[in-house]
Amino acid sequence: MADSLTDSECILIDRYWRAANYLSVGQIYLMDNPLLREPLKPEHIKPRLLGHWGTTPGLNFIYVHLNRIIRQRKLNLLYVCGPGHGGPGMVANTWLEGSYSEIYPDVSQDIAGMKRLFKQFSFPGGIPSHAAAETPGSINEGGELGYSLAHAFGAAFDHPELIVPCIIGDGEAETGPLSASWQSLKFLNPQRDGAVLPILHVNGYKIANPTLSGRTSDEELVHLYRAMGYAPRVVTGSDPALMHTQMAMVLDQAFDEIAAIQRQYRQEKPPAGVPRWPMILLRSPKGWTGPKSVDGKKVEDFWRAHQVPVSGCRENDEHRRILEQWLKSYQPEKLFDASGRLRPELQALAPQGDWRMGASPWANGGRLRQPLNTPDIRAFSLDVSTPGAIQGQATEQLGHYLREIVQKNPNNFLIFGPDETASNRLSPVFEVTARRWMGEREPYDEQLAPDGRVLEVLSEHLCQGWLEGYLLSGRHGLFNCYEAFIHIIDSMFNQHAKWLKVSRKLPWRAPIASLNYLLSSHVWRQDHNGYSHQDPGFIDHVANKKADIVRVYLPPDANTLLWVGDHCLKTWDRINVIVAGKQPSPQWLDRDSAAKHCEAGMGIWSWAGNTDDDTSPDVVMACAGDVPTIETLAAVQLLRDLVPELNVRVVNVVDLMALQTQEQHPHGKPEPAFEALFTADKPIIFAFHGYPSLIHRLTYQRRNHQNFHVQGFSEEGTTTTPFDMTVLNKLDRYHLALAAITHVPHLAATQGHVIDTLQARLAYHHDYVREHGEDMPEVSQWRWGQGNPE
Amino acid sequence: MADSLTDSECILIDRYWRAANYLSVGQIYLMDNPLLREPLKPEHIKPRLLGHWGTTPGLNFIYVHLNRIIRQRKLNLLYVCGPGHGGPGMVANTWLEGSYSEIYPDVSQDIAGMKRLFKQFSFPGGIPSHAAAETPGSINEGGELGYSLAHAFGAAFDHPELIVPCIIGDGEAETGPLSASWQSLKFLNPQRDGAVLPILHVNGYKIANPTLSGRTSDEELVHLYRAMGYAPRVVTGSDPALMHTQMAMVLDQAFDEIAAIQRQYRQEKPPAGVPRWPMILLRSPKGWTGPKSVDGKKVEDFWRAHQVPVSGCRENDEHRRILEQWLKSYQPEKLFDASGRLRPELQALAPQGDWRMGASPWANGGRLRQPLNTPDIRAFSLDVSTPGAIQGQATEQLGHYLREIVQKNPNNFLIFGPDETASNRLSPVFEVTARRWMGEREPYDEQLAPDGRVLEVLSEHLCQGWLEGYLLSGRHGLFNCYEAFIHIIDSMFNQHAKWLKVSRKLPWRAPIASLNYLLSSHVWRQDHNGYSHQDPGFIDHVANKKADIVRVYLPPDANTLLWVGDHCLKTWDRINVIVAGKQPSPQWLDRDSAAKHCEAGMGIWSWAGNTDDDTSPDVVMACAGDVPTIETLAAVQLLRDLVPELNVRVVNVVDLMALQTQEQHPHGKPEPAFEALFTADKPIIFAFHGYPSLIHRLTYQRRNHQNFHVQGFSEEGTTTTPFDMTVLNKLDRYHLALAAITHVPHLAATQGHVIDTLQARLAYHHDYVREHGEDMPEVSQWRWGQGNPE
Repeated sequence: MADSLTDSECILIDRYWRAANYLSVGQIYLMDNPLLREPLKPEHIKPRLLGHWGTTPGLNFIYVHLNRIIRQRKLNLLYVCGPGHGGPGMVANTWLEGSYSEIYPDVSQDIAGMKRLFKQFSFPGGIPSHAAAETPGSINEGGELGYSLAHAFGAAFDHPELIVPCIIGDGEAETGPLSASWQSLKFLNPQRDGAVLPILHVNGYKIANPTLSGRTSDEELVHLYRAMGYAPRVVTGSDPALMHTQMAMVLDQAFDEIAAIQRQYRQEKPPAGVPRWPMILLRSPKGWTGPKSVDGKKVEDFWRAHQVPVSGCRENDEHRRILEQWLKSYQPEKLFDASGRLRPELQALAPQGDWRMGASPWANGGRLRQPLNTPDIRAFSLDVSTPGAIQGQATEQLGHYLREIVQKNPNNFLIFGPDETASNRLSPVFEVTARRWMGEREPYDEQLAPDGRVLEVLSEHLCQGWLEGYLLSGRHGLFNCYEAFIHIIDSMFNQHAKWLKVSRKLPWRAPIASLNYLLSSHVWRQDHNGYSHQDPGFIDHVANKKADIVRVYLPPDANTLLWVGDHCLKTWDRINVIVAGKQPSPQWLDRDSAAKHCEAGMGIWSWAGNTDDDTSPDVVMACAGDVPTIETLAAVQLLRDLVPELNVRVVNVVDLMALQTQEQHPHGKPEPAFEALFTADKPIIFAFHGYPSLIHRLTYQRRNHQNFHVQGFSEEGTTTTPFDMTVLNKLDRYHLALAAITHVPHLAATQGHVIDTLQARLAYHHDYVREHGEDMPEVSQWRWGQGNPE
Repeated sequence: MADSLTDSECILIDRYWRAANYLSVGQIYLMDNPLLREPLKPEHIKPRLLGHWGTTPGLNFIYVHLNRIIRQRKLNLLYVCGPGHGGPGMVANTWLEGSYSEIYPDVSQDIAGMKRLFKQFSFPGGIPSHAAAETPGSINEGGELGYSLAHAFGAAFDHPELIVPCIIGDGEAETGPLSASWQSLKFLNPQRDGAVLPILHVNGYKIANPTLSGRTSDEELVHLYRAMGYAPRVVTGSDPALMHTQMAMVLDQAFDEIAAIQRQYRQEKPPAGVPRWPMILLRSPKGWTGPKSVDGKKVEDFWRAHQVPVSGCRENDEHRRILEQWLKSYQPEKLFDASGRLRPELQALAPQGDWRMGASPWANGGRLRQPLNTPDIRAFSLDVSTPGAIQGQATEQLGHYLREIVQKNPNNFLIFGPDETASNRLSPVFEVTARRWMGEREPYDEQLAPDGRVLEVLSEHLCQGWLEGYLLSGRHGLFNCYEAFIHIIDSMFNQHAKWLKVSRKLPWRAPIASLNYLLSSHVWRQDHNGYSHQDPGFIDHVANKKADIVRVYLPPDANTLLWVGDHCLKTWDRINVIVAGKQPSPQWLDRDSAAKHCEAGMGIWSWAGNTDDDTSPDVVMACAGDVPTIETLAAVQLLRDLVPELNVRVVNVVDLMALQTQEQHPHGKPEPAFEALFTADKPIIFAFHGYPSLIHRLTYQRRNHQNFHVQGFSEEGTTTTPFDMTVLNKLDRYHLALAAITHVPHLAATQGHVIDTLQARLAYHHDYVREHGEDMPEVSQWRWGQGNPE
């Protein structure tokens, strides 16, 4: 095979790389004298030396070689940087190619701009040390490790025109999410998706340890990744000239292979099965080109190169000398002209316009985002003549709606889930599509296809990572999951929320579609599984994030779920959490009432109470969530039968954030509107889907908050009947009615017989369910408006 | 090689297996007529059919074969059941071997007991459907998938006498945590640890999908696991007789290999490197021996066998007939005698006493737990003559204490962390031990050794899973982690808390050592990394769990951290979270004051306020956490200088749970004691380490709660100076002083000049830090008691 590089190309590439390395070191260390045109003095050096050098030269090496590929092959590349903590590398390269200064004109491509570039890095009021939202060309912050490869595949889905090189650090490779992400290739369809080129960057060390890959031979690593289905090629060494030659050749081979696979699969009759995609194992020294040793201790090619290889350069003359020599070793005078610009022959190595990885539209997905084509939800509404008249399955109705979404958006919308899409009753989508399956299929398989629009894998991490990559590169999607296990991605949620918080403030980052969760198979209906599957705490976690980012919805029935689902899919730059049931349940609101109720976020259900909306009730029975709503209405019916003189108001809450004040959340209700629902001084018995503390926290600033008595999940769970679950947690109709009687002043004293009746029903339930294994008829046959048995 | 089984042994083993399968089906379906001695009628069948059949026959198959190994080789085995949702299998087997009835005498080994065994399963008031804490022999619930292999390795560490077969479902194998867990073998030292035998149970399907392994050939799977460092052996098929023969042979080979490795490594001069441990790939049909099809649809060897393969058996005569035939196919009359006991020739197949896997002491680790040998913390205290007199690094002091713990408990205590033990300043432990490293070592490596007592891998999932396995099998440990990234294991924390909640109520489960987290490199001191590393929300997550399980400590300095760390390591059946700083910081309390303060959980720091403890102050300046404590004290100093007439009290909180009422938490303070600190009616300016809502939530039931004004993390983060971080979140001294002036009634009106002064300092800080990149001298040189500059 002919060399990919001529000698002169190799020299140019090496100089470009040195320029990127120089700028990276400059960012970590310098606040003045950017081109070292005078001797390095203490005051040129930042007082606090922060940042990560170790991974950076490798990142720069890959970047310049990908630039060559883009120019030569005219390819659209999205650079996903797993070791995003090597932020100086991405910043340096985007500055060199000009995309940085286009976005941040202050940081111009000249000596004044270079000084700003250096000073701003990890500096108060400046830019973060990682490849964060502020960094052009980034969709992966890389601070929390493990998600780069899932992001890369997510970005490649439905982008046949895109190739995503994904740099994975050998530290990151030890994490669980990354380990699982290698499986992603089994879900990538070369015909309709783009390609991912994983580049495992083995630099041998983490913060203070060798990496496992670092102490594994090339041969063993090749075996491992071959066994995972890839075709690995190795680039290994430390001599720059040899490394450039190897890297250029291996990249050419890899991109040739990608092109060959795509040609083959994009024929009219593509082959079956999963192709063997190329990947690259790049073994280069940590802190490559940096100081070999400092104070007699090994630095280059060791973990000491991880962050700042030589410290105290203001105070320590010898250290400052090491730094100066190190910077000068790149020969900045041969890289930059008198004005501080990259020399023209090096500028020519960078691609132009949107070809530059820092300007990649796929890394600023909002630029590519097309609005979702949504059907009219009215076509899927249930016909509810009177509240409680019919039973229905909320998520199944949403499934019908999603079926239309899938059909109307054939390349713009994907559903992700850990093998639970059917279990969550979204099965109607399978009338028009299938689960994505590139592997072997059997004649008896159902709903598996290489072009399926539902991606199921038993890894919440992968579902979340794929969806994030898909959204960040400009599309729409939904993650459906068991409620309890969404905690598996708590930390990924955090990072995405942080990304959105920052990106929303950057005018150049166009809004991306919201990340939508549908949590079904929730805490109250884990009949098969019990306690390990019973946890409603994700919404507590969500509520910690910035108010303008997060929304939590608890639609009580199908028509409200439809409104909420449709609404969420039309929003952007948010994280929407919808918790909804999948079991047959009474339906409360017709489609118009549902729309009105959901738009308001919460409201009085006049038909359920026994007092008009303007009269102050004796007690407010409030509810949020489908099961709490049923139990509240049953409790109200009990109260109306047993204590007819009691004035009861029913308030249902769909949009949890509406409970907060306007100052706390954009959806917050003004105090007068809040009091028009919850009164200024009456007791509120609040039946809540989740942990009670969340309601206290959301209503904390309300005048009447001391009158909120919340029943919710109190960590009592097991495999039992759905009604028994509510009893164990005192969220059932009898406990709610008892709470009302207890908290209305002076009422308890006069209602001893009613209290006895309610407690007798609880005792009867206790025995009945343990004998029969199912709920007593007064519960299982209960219907709104039919009265209660004695 | 000779056959491992004679024909008659094979027949016996098959019958035993059929008995376990029969009991498994019985548990899912029957509430009466347990031995089918009369025709199956609707009323014999449970009204709600719950549970998971699909995986169960495979689990039973493995169990009976391991019984043979135990008897023949006299080995201690701990059966870790990844697909714990196949709970009927573990329950059936422990009943057959007698360990179940010893723990639950009601469920006797006769026909009455069998009826109870069947009815109780997934039945209200009965037992859960999974291998939960209630299940003898279990340390892995298996409801949330992904942790079995990490648990298995955790149990094997420091247990040279133990072998842990770990069954991994092919669904679980797709998860991130499990994918990473294969690396565990690189941390297992055959000399001092036991062995793990992974058994990947490929039954081909999940809930509604094929598994990825299910559609991968044996050859490819063997390559894959060989490439990961194992020596896989395959057992594949569906004909029971052939499968028994294969399984017995392969198990014999695997246990021979384990014995050979252990012999080799337990010589005086063990070889270097990681041995190639055996593993087993068991490919058997999902729902093996169940109905082949129902209503014309494929069930056995397909995903429809996952839960209840034939439903509606009460109502549907044909389905009931299928069920009856299925049960009868096991020929119960040949398995059980007239009294319902397993026939003697089959009983003989089970091991005896503690050899039975249901009676394994390692699965009830509290039985093996030895108290930790702890040194006197006074040896490690810092000498603090007056508050604030010296600087110290809290976690480093704890490191000295941990060094002694490591030394005094050479086989009973391990430290786990994701490559951050040194970064978290626990380095003194490396004076007496090293990081565990079985792989290749270089001459310049530091603190790596095959017998190291610190296990570091870049996977929080592995750290947590290993530690859980280590604790559950009877030892002690500590997980040190960056605060933000502990969210990665939120869901694992949930599951462990659930396990503890249940196991504490089971008298036969002896208490295990607490799970201790040390979260350092916390939100306020992520100087190198910025926003992605800034998240204090784990303690919010923790606070959702049952009060008697969880504790959260925020020691403000070294001596308090020492007391708290020592205390936590001596507790059991809890989860303790300690958040503590690693940076040089002022030290407040001498060792006796620290002990007194920590024992109380919170208290007045009289030396810091300007009013005696009995006088009601104008304002309470409260703080929890090291950085908030510094800022509070600096604010108090400002107030004392600028508004000397203001009576200020300082309250520091170490034990967050003490803020709750006694009814809410065992550490909760009675209301009078609470008011003695926080007053009944005065404003409290609370500087908090985490999200402010947690303090509101914990103090919600306090009479004076409306006067709590909490400053904490408000999701404002980036790479900046530590002090600027507090300013961004309004937790700094100036904002705290301003808050005090604002909230003391009528004070603000008279203190316009002071407010101007404080705001001017904030403005000056803003400009100073952005120009100089470090904090202004009045902050960086601030010391308690030295007065403030003008």
